[in-house]
Amino acid sequence: MIIDCHGHYTTAPDAHQKFRDQQMAKLKDPLAPTPTPTRISDDEIRETIEKNQLKLQKERGADITVFSPRASAMAHHVGDEEVSQAWTRACNDLIKRVVDLYPENFVGVCQLPQSPGVPISHSVRELERSVRELGFIGCNLNPDPSGGHWTAPPLTDKHWYPFYEKMVELDVPAMIHVSASCNPNFHATGAHYINADTTAFMQFIEGNLFKDFPALRFIIPHGGGAVPYHWGRYRGLADMLKRPPLPEHVMKNVFFDTCVYHQPGIDLLVKVIDIDNILFGSEMVGAVRGIDPQTGNYFDDTKRYIDALSISAADKQRIFEGNARRVFPRLDAILKARGQ
Amino acid sequence: MIIDCHGHYTTAPDAHQKFRDQQMAKLKDPLAPTPTPTRISDDEIRETIEKNQLKLQKERGADITVFSPRASAMAHHVGDEEVSQAWTRACNDLIKRVVDLYPENFVGVCQLPQSPGVPISHSVRELERSVRELGFIGCNLNPDPSGGHWTAPPLTDKHWYPFYEKMVELDVPAMIHVSASCNPNFHATGAHYINADTTAFMQFIEGNLFKDFPALRFIIPHGGGAVPYHWGRYRGLADMLKRPPLPEHVMKNVFFDTCVYHQPGIDLLVKVIDIDNILFGSEMVGAVRGIDPQTGNYFDDTKRYIDALSISAADKQRIFEGNARRVFPRLDAILKARGQ
Repeated sequence: MIIDCHGHYTTAPDAHQKFRDQQMAKLKDPLAPTPTPTRISDDEIRETIEKNQLKLQKERGADITVFSPRASAMAHHVGDEEVSQAWTRACNDLIKRVVDLYPENFVGVCQLPQSPGVPISHSVRELERSVRELGFIGCNLNPDPSGGHWTAPPLTDKHWYPFYEKMVELDVPAMIHVSASCNPNFHATGAHYINADTTAFMQFIEGNLFKDFPALRFIIPHGGGAVPYHWGRYRGLADMLKRPPLPEHVMKNVFFDTCVYHQPGIDLLVKVIDIDNILFGSEMVGAVRGIDPQTGNYFDDTKRYIDALSISAADKQRIFEGNARRVFPRLDAILKARGQ
Repeated sequence: MIIDCHGHYTTAPDAHQKFRDQQMAKLKDPLAPTPTPTRISDDEIRETIEKNQLKLQKERGADITVFSPRASAMAHHVGDEEVSQAWTRACNDLIKRVVDLYPENFVGVCQLPQSPGVPISHSVRELERSVRELGFIGCNLNPDPSGGHWTAPPLTDKHWYPFYEKMVELDVPAMIHVSASCNPNFHATGAHYINADTTAFMQFIEGNLFKDFPALRFIIPHGGGAVPYHWGRYRGLADMLKRPPLPEHVMKNVFFDTCVYHQPGIDLLVKVIDIDNILFGSEMVGAVRGIDPQTGNYFDDTKRYIDALSISAADKQRIFEGNARRVFPRLDAILKARGQ
């Protein structure tokens, strides 16, 4: 079985964006009516899924995608917490409908109603609703709800602890995933995403978070940002900061996906990072949608890069399936209940 | 000949820091006397250089280091432009003294008196002084003088153009190098440095800077941040943004150093980036000072990684010498004048 741990609903029906547009309109004109999520038919969802994610899933040979709302559209910096709350519920409810329509192909991960300057504990309720009521298996946690101004405390700060307690209680991991950037310095998918991955990892080295939460699990997407390429730097910095070696200090709790869009990058990832810490992911349909002229294949067809690795079939199975089932116990339970 | 394109005076005499401390004291107490740079003897400089950079240069087998003030101490976010101005002059003057004491071993690159919210044109004078009066061959340009708040415009913005005009006129490159981070999210050498490298590269993809300045040259340090590891992503993003392929759009003007502290990282760098775009650098004595228990060698002894590459001697010579002489024409002229 092949589990893609990183997929977003980047192709949601126009009606979904219409609700967002109405939210924006009300932000500009407080006298505008308070919008409610636009009605979306099952056919509209089928149309957008079958022509995109489901089609690519079949073509490329994945079985099930861990599916969450479009990351760049979370935009926690827009409006206030109430706006974020309403948008988040609409986004998560839409994911739930995709999962209900294609339960064999998608499993849900939720967006959170984060907002700059607001305690993360306010997101606990949506996590609880998503896991207990919608059957989701994890969440996307934004370390920078300001959208590129980095005004929140580091992920190791007690600020985040109420949320971590709930994650542990529910036994769900978080993918650390920023959203759009409203800082002109940072291109969203070319700088902000990758920087956030790198930043989060270094915060974990500096802190002692996993002493307080030994069962906490994070996926750092996009192949761990810059971390594997600079693995010597991070091993050296842990040493300089008098931290334990990374395998015990961080790597029992942190996992990288395979959203690295060329073979040499994936080769490096698998060379320096323990196989047990790597989860197959493609982020499709996502950041990079074109065909690589050097290979003739889609940049984000990351399964090909794993297939091409000179590692054992058992190791590949861990990347494709085993590790994801360990990091997402609720996914494992769903699959087991189906006899998979 | 082996040219290390990236070395900082991280071991400057205590007296140098004393001046900085007095600057800080005056920031706290405006009635304190305006400090002037503390007197530093040649012996103090010799002591700090011979026991550190010069010793390591000899032990590791480099011939000459492109030497600049300690990057993390530039701290452009501290005080105002006047403070930055005085500190910068003191730092650059100290580098000049190192170069005068060891002209065979060091060549100078200057810090700039940047300050948040101030036009970069104010730095033109110090660049001119450093190149024309001190004989320096380049500069370190900080894309984020705010120290982790990223309040300056992107490097492709016209804000920076007066400085680029002077760089082109003087025929000197800039290393893009941030300083300390005053944002608790970003560890300086573990996150802020690497993020800045990645961010700058993506800004160059988004913009059209090298159409306006075909002769402008930048070195992105720390192996180009996350860029080589995500080379597929950047090739794909250039394509999505309808930019020309990277070799013509960016890579005639942008160079990466080899400050990547493990063999697999250097292997990747050389695999995906054209040899002509790679300059040998170690950043020693710098960010990571320990010994890698996996190899028994210093993490930042990057020459070993280049030596171990399966590339031709001619290619190694380009990384060690040829490319640096091309990117730093004033270094080439100095060496040629010596018959080197």
